[in-house]
Amino acid sequence: MGEQITYGISEAEETSTSLPTLSFFPKESFDYILKLTISNIDKAEIFSYLARFNTLYMISRAGSGHIGGSFSSMDVITWLYLNILKSDDRYFSSKGHDAPGLYSIHTALGILNFDLIHKLRKIDGLPGHPDVKMPGAHTNTGSLGMGVSKAKGFLIADTLNGQNKNGKIFVLTGDGELQEGQFWESLISIKYKTELQNIIVLVDHNKIQSDTYVKNVGDLGNLDQKFKSFDFEVFRIDGHDFSAIEEVFSKIDKISKPIAIICDTIKGKGISFMEHINMQENEEYYKYHSGAPSPGEYKKAKNELIENIKLKFNKINFDIPEHKDIDYTPLFAASNTFRLIPGYSEKIVKIAKNNHSIIALDADLILDTGLIDFKKNYPNRFIECGIAEQDMVSQAGTIALSGLIPIVHSFACFLTSRASEQIYNNCTQGGKVIYVGSLAGVLPGGPGPSHQAVRDIAAMKAMPGIVIIEPLCLSELNFAFDWIINTNKTSAYLRITSIPIKYRHEFEGISKFNPGQGYILREGYDINIIVLGPILTVEVLEACDELVKDNINCNVIAFSFANNIDGIWLKSALKNMNAPILILENHMTEGGFGETISKVILENKITYKNNIEFIGINGVPRSGSNQEVLNAHELSSIHIVQKVKNII
Amino acid sequence: MGEQITYGISEAEETSTSLPTLSFFPKESFDYILKLTISNIDKAEIFSYLARFNTLYMISRAGSGHIGGSFSSMDVITWLYLNILKSDDRYFSSKGHDAPGLYSIHTALGILNFDLIHKLRKIDGLPGHPDVKMPGAHTNTGSLGMGVSKAKGFLIADTLNGQNKNGKIFVLTGDGELQEGQFWESLISIKYKTELQNIIVLVDHNKIQSDTYVKNVGDLGNLDQKFKSFDFEVFRIDGHDFSAIEEVFSKIDKISKPIAIICDTIKGKGISFMEHINMQENEEYYKYHSGAPSPGEYKKAKNELIENIKLKFNKINFDIPEHKDIDYTPLFAASNTFRLIPGYSEKIVKIAKNNHSIIALDADLILDTGLIDFKKNYPNRFIECGIAEQDMVSQAGTIALSGLIPIVHSFACFLTSRASEQIYNNCTQGGKVIYVGSLAGVLPGGPGPSHQAVRDIAAMKAMPGIVIIEPLCLSELNFAFDWIINTNKTSAYLRITSIPIKYRHEFEGISKFNPGQGYILREGYDINIIVLGPILTVEVLEACDELVKDNINCNVIAFSFANNIDGIWLKSALKNMNAPILILENHMTEGGFGETISKVILENKITYKNNIEFIGINGVPRSGSNQEVLNAHELSSIHIVQKVKNII
Repeated sequence: MGEQITYGISEAEETSTSLPTLSFFPKESFDYILKLTISNIDKAEIFSYLARFNTLYMISRAGSGHIGGSFSSMDVITWLYLNILKSDDRYFSSKGHDAPGLYSIHTALGILNFDLIHKLRKIDGLPGHPDVKMPGAHTNTGSLGMGVSKAKGFLIADTLNGQNKNGKIFVLTGDGELQEGQFWESLISIKYKTELQNIIVLVDHNKIQSDTYVKNVGDLGNLDQKFKSFDFEVFRIDGHDFSAIEEVFSKIDKISKPIAIICDTIKGKGISFMEHINMQENEEYYKYHSGAPSPGEYKKAKNELIENIKLKFNKINFDIPEHKDIDYTPLFAASNTFRLIPGYSEKIVKIAKNNHSIIALDADLILDTGLIDFKKNYPNRFIECGIAEQDMVSQAGTIALSGLIPIVHSFACFLTSRASEQIYNNCTQGGKVIYVGSLAGVLPGGPGPSHQAVRDIAAMKAMPGIVIIEPLCLSELNFAFDWIINTNKTSAYLRITSIPIKYRHEFEGISKFNPGQGYILREGYDINIIVLGPILTVEVLEACDELVKDNINCNVIAFSFANNIDGIWLKSALKNMNAPILILENHMTEGGFGETISKVILENKITYKNNIEFIGINGVPRSGSNQEVLNAHELSSIHIVQKVKNII
Repeated sequence: MGEQITYGISEAEETSTSLPTLSFFPKESFDYILKLTISNIDKAEIFSYLARFNTLYMISRAGSGHIGGSFSSMDVITWLYLNILKSDDRYFSSKGHDAPGLYSIHTALGILNFDLIHKLRKIDGLPGHPDVKMPGAHTNTGSLGMGVSKAKGFLIADTLNGQNKNGKIFVLTGDGELQEGQFWESLISIKYKTELQNIIVLVDHNKIQSDTYVKNVGDLGNLDQKFKSFDFEVFRIDGHDFSAIEEVFSKIDKISKPIAIICDTIKGKGISFMEHINMQENEEYYKYHSGAPSPGEYKKAKNELIENIKLKFNKINFDIPEHKDIDYTPLFAASNTFRLIPGYSEKIVKIAKNNHSIIALDADLILDTGLIDFKKNYPNRFIECGIAEQDMVSQAGTIALSGLIPIVHSFACFLTSRASEQIYNNCTQGGKVIYVGSLAGVLPGGPGPSHQAVRDIAAMKAMPGIVIIEPLCLSELNFAFDWIINTNKTSAYLRITSIPIKYRHEFEGISKFNPGQGYILREGYDINIIVLGPILTVEVLEACDELVKDNINCNVIAFSFANNIDGIWLKSALKNMNAPILILENHMTEGGFGETISKVILENKITYKNNIEFIGINGVPRSGSNQEVLNAHELSSIHIVQKVKNII
């Protein structure tokens, strides 16, 4: 489920003076291929290479996206769309990470408007993971392990609706994804309804999950036997051999039970330096699961694909269609930024040096959660749990009961949600467990709702005894982590922003850490702004810079504590008790920080006759570039300026 | 995970004039058995029968408890404790429902203070599911599927702590429990660490899950093959044949990989009319999963056990020890009560008659969630999903996308927690799904924290678009359900109290339903009491009856809406804006209804100089009888009276 945001054409090699020309094949190229009088296998092969070319374009232009899995599944999915899917069949990917690959097929075939290839991960464009609002998507994906359950729901509804009796549903799964319990859970009751026999599971067995080799994380062992023990008919093929693909699909109509087709594939297939089989022997981590290629990598990849496409056209003796070039200048990230994850990496290594009780657990996101150095330094105290958040959290519970301090890592969206009951169970049995959720909040906006953690505070604050902290800057992260480990007795949830945060001089003023208290980052008497977390604090401060030009002076109180608020301190921090209050959070307004503060205000008899307003996420979070998403939810500095003016 | 509370010695056959004498074997009886010079097999057999006798006593006295699974696992667990467990070994049950059986062994062996057998499901007694605070419990259980994960955590911690290198962990699981995804998830990474090879999974394969036959719900198919495909060494035995039990345990020391021992057992083993093999051919539901026997059943069961115990002692030619009798008068439930679940049963059948879009999904709790009549009337529109909440909720999502109205049922604690990410995923993709969580709130107090849903409002209110309603009485439930199905466009969460609710004449006044508004059940000017849900509304009204004697007149505003509150109405309902406010909820104070109301108060400029106080659950919910739990959390009418007096 990785969402590496540490490189990408939009950020990497910023000093590079020669940006590559981005290229894609237009719709006509695909129409042309589809009309060629060549064998189905030749057609699929050529189509899949052009689709790869466009996938590379989309991801490079977007600055992020899952390239490895898009390429490993490309051949099977191409065959499916060109030769197998009938009008009453459905296909979707359970993991949804391979969306760019699927979009390249959907745009090529006219299922999606072709021009959308220029808008991957942009607002009103193609979301980072499929969304049901897009034609051909069928369902929202991006959270792992749900695909077969969803297929079951569709087929049951079809029967009840008296429709689609013969329609099959093809569900693609990753191999790492099979570590999720829901996948196996969803198989158990398949045999109870006739219509569920129309499910065909395609396993994109590319051997690499988010970080590294599947076999090093949660070996699937005898996968054929596993499926058979759940009453599946099992086939296993080379997922890049179109003859084998053709043959296996020719068999499925005759089988009246659920089918699993295990496709042995190569992650990054089609671009040699991205293919996992070309990893060095001592290379532990695969580099092209997500993110985007650097400009240099883009050029190399593009050239290799073009060479291969040429060879294929030469073989069939037809003219190669022309690709289009675009001189696209990516938006560079602001240069004056900092990141919390590297700071966290450093801190956990440092604190674990003298505290041998600290154990780090990870759910296949070692690159994203910043644990590489920890693992290097303390291999015995690092536990790679695989994509198995429930299992990880329950293990942490008994590790804590044994007197150690387990620190559990994943993306905030998965950790606090998939393992919700397990976290509560840990709370009821005592023991101190630290939960570290990165990728917290509505940004990055690219991956879409499945990866946007905007209800984690609500879920975690009702857990008995859990303190929630969203660090504002690097020094505050250090203070907070020390306090969590060395002083605080209960469990804690560290909510970490993963995207680069714009540097603000006001952060320099943070030189102490008083639990439950915030920081007055700017003093003023016209309005009190209470804000949680770094992203919105920066937006607020930028808004203040603007407002001061109109002689509006804001009192900015920034919190890292999302609960356990020191009400007496808050009362003292409100400079002008008669000024309005604006409360902002990078979270759903309902159930979030604003409600906590509301209760604190009432309990501490902080009475107002003036306005109090709340800004946060309302409704389903939008997907798009970070700035687009902030704008869409009226959280950007421009909107804050307007809001403040309206209130005053 | 059923928690039937529809019968039990404390409530059933209330008209019976002849209550049975309750009997148990004292500690000395077990000491005596342990000293007899008989074979290990004879000893275990006799011990297990006396332990069953005491289990029957505990459950009958408590008025609820899981008898079927306690009896099916009794023989294997007895053997384990008498002959296998060494000081560095651990045993726990993953499901924990079989706690009464385990307690009878633990009290007999002195692991627990013997006198605790009189305090099952009482405060400071033996919780309905094991709690780590009890000696011998090791970990908190009651939520399914977590056992192997917990064992892994213990073993990893042992290694890191340099302890217990040879200790084994025996984990008992149910067979219905194997429908939970986390179980399979937890097996995948077992082979990565040497110490994890010390896990022995004992499957109590009694063929019956909460409601009915496992094979009718989520067939485990070739269970041996399933375990083997996850690299387990698998044994299969008759779990009531002590020779077979002895033999299998003699083999385990020589095996250096994870072991599964599938024990074919009989649910209710030892009392013929409770044994599932004696169910009638047309009998669909097993009656002795949870709850307590009626007085008549108790007498019959006790006599049969005594007869069997006599036979066994005759066989070995030793005197039978004497049991002790107790004339225990159970506390009857107040006779003037009503229940919401039967009302819900009736309503869903009625509304589905004309609305063919309504589909009911259940997770093996058809008896507890009130769906028996629905299933009878609309068998095609009833989907039994098994103990697989994640799978159920994801299925519901695509059923909703297909234009139907899925209504998803389980206990609130499991539904909103285990399937948290799946509910959110459904919210992001649209479609109207109705979530019905019964057993909501801190009561019943007997089953303990795993079954007490006290953070479901927090979890659900941050889900985009979900309306939360906790019906106050039968007529309000009818109004609410009509509104949810016919008027409201978004998804909804119906939070239903399962225990009997005391009748109050004030409920008669509820004759309308205005979304977001509450009901003024009593007018007064001394204090405004805002309360959510039926249980605390009754306590508040009882408190008002007391307070009026002291000339304190309360303004009682009862809500069924936990979010989407109509602030303008609330403002109008507060009779005296200068009186203090008291807010009560059957939920964690943090993240709950009180915070929602706080925000509404501020947003609607309802300003106070007076006190506002909040009562709800703080910390881990207590386990005990309903009244004990209300008292412990200061939620009972007596505490409310005191609180009001303090505030005024």
